[in-house]
Amino acid sequence: MGKDFGGFKSILIIGLGLIGGSVALSLRKEGYRGKIYGFDLNEYRIKKAVEMGAIDKGFTDIESIPWDEIDLVILSTPVKTFLTIAENIKRYLRKDTVVTDVGSVKGELVKKLEEILKPAVFIGAHPIAGTEKEGVENAVVGLFKGKKVILTVDHQDEHTERIKKFWEDLGSKVEIMDPFVHDFVFAAVSHLPHAVAFALVDALIELSKERDIDLFLYPGAGFKDFTRIAASSPVVWKDIFIENKEEVLHTIDQFIKSMEKLKDYIKNEDEKKLIDLLSESRERRLSLD
Amino acid sequence: MGKDFGGFKSILIIGLGLIGGSVALSLRKEGYRGKIYGFDLNEYRIKKAVEMGAIDKGFTDIESIPWDEIDLVILSTPVKTFLTIAENIKRYLRKDTVVTDVGSVKGELVKKLEEILKPAVFIGAHPIAGTEKEGVENAVVGLFKGKKVILTVDHQDEHTERIKKFWEDLGSKVEIMDPFVHDFVFAAVSHLPHAVAFALVDALIELSKERDIDLFLYPGAGFKDFTRIAASSPVVWKDIFIENKEEVLHTIDQFIKSMEKLKDYIKNEDEKKLIDLLSESRERRLSLD
Repeated sequence: MGKDFGGFKSILIIGLGLIGGSVALSLRKEGYRGKIYGFDLNEYRIKKAVEMGAIDKGFTDIESIPWDEIDLVILSTPVKTFLTIAENIKRYLRKDTVVTDVGSVKGELVKKLEEILKPAVFIGAHPIAGTEKEGVENAVVGLFKGKKVILTVDHQDEHTERIKKFWEDLGSKVEIMDPFVHDFVFAAVSHLPHAVAFALVDALIELSKERDIDLFLYPGAGFKDFTRIAASSPVVWKDIFIENKEEVLHTIDQFIKSMEKLKDYIKNEDEKKLIDLLSESRERRLSLD
Repeated sequence: MGKDFGGFKSILIIGLGLIGGSVALSLRKEGYRGKIYGFDLNEYRIKKAVEMGAIDKGFTDIESIPWDEIDLVILSTPVKTFLTIAENIKRYLRKDTVVTDVGSVKGELVKKLEEILKPAVFIGAHPIAGTEKEGVENAVVGLFKGKKVILTVDHQDEHTERIKKFWEDLGSKVEIMDPFVHDFVFAAVSHLPHAVAFALVDALIELSKERDIDLFLYPGAGFKDFTRIAASSPVVWKDIFIENKEEVLHTIDQFIKSMEKLKDYIKNEDEKKLIDLLSESRERRLSLD
């Protein structure tokens, strides 16, 4: 079957950030022929998105959007805004309009969105791709190529199939996952590492003050790679941490336990346990390459 | 002044690991004309180092080394072995032999080495370069080019100047630092991040067990970069953590405080404080690029 991106004729992307912009640019690059509309409160981003050829037309107010044409809506604003946006757009949606998103938090939120948007259909999606940059101006063509996209539906139907096709035609590998399992998994593999990177830089700021030495003058081997994700958007991550609060706090607790364990081994100079912990971590990490 | 690598005629590298091997290969590449001898307990590494053109000749026993020729000894074994090695080689050293090292821990160790090796001179050195790989077979030509090398001497004399010249001729930028300040700085910018990376992978192993999901199937954006240093040598890092125990434990404590602070802000959904912490970390991190 050729590329039809799920057969959607006109797409509305709400939020012209890095991900929204990258979806639009990648659609064009991969040969999508339908209309791509954009909505953003920021006029500069709309102007920019049009200039870049990412969208055909942009809107800053909801009423002006040609809703009759739209058969796919992609929420790509911060997750925190999804419920409000859903409440505001629901009256404009056709019964067969599919709404999806690109957010990093699912769980309860997905259930609420499905409820609010009825009879239109909501299919939660989470492309595992991104950079630490922000804004449509940093959008990347092909950002989703070869990357996983998680669809958080509990049953598979024609709408799921269309969204699956949409992402596959952008080169992604689609996987179905329960929305609550999703939130645990991504708390562990994404939200926790971000929390750790932010906290590590914070610790270095505090330690610099304590001894009156600018530690940031000595970024040793690995430190820059290690903390790159601490350059991620504070607003986006504040939202993710709060939206996925329960699982994030749980994974932070486990991480602090691991940190305390390592600390005890060092304090007791327990060479055997240290080697065991370091070796097991090393092997698991190497298995990713 | 042309390249003379500090004017040393014959160099002995003790420990043909990644760093020792990279020093040897880089010396050759940059035009060093003297002899380079290697010492290692592992015959395979000696054979490999000779094959690679890194060293002229290698030895597995100390007595066979042509000590009369050697005017620079570079310790590049794990830091833990330095004192024993110093005790074993001191009787062979000439009064004007300079001993240096490439270790990541200084402080008290430097003071002890200076004492043991008298009347020969010890100049502590720490090149801020490396990879997570091990062994002479992974040695990298030009590893030290453009990288900082910290010399931990409390006074500058002709020996310091020669070691400075040695590293500058390999393309490094040399900086002088008190050995105790060095241990604090590198606990914070290097040892702590490694501890954090190992603990993070450990936490993911524990969380995977807890919910019976292999979290390593979902390495999200940034996670691989973030944990790359957890693939570092367990033996090397076990030693570093124990050798620099006091400062490492202190920086881990500060890091756990930062982690707990972030956790509290998330728990209380304190958006303002979250944004402040995340933004400050982000700005400091961006200042490194």
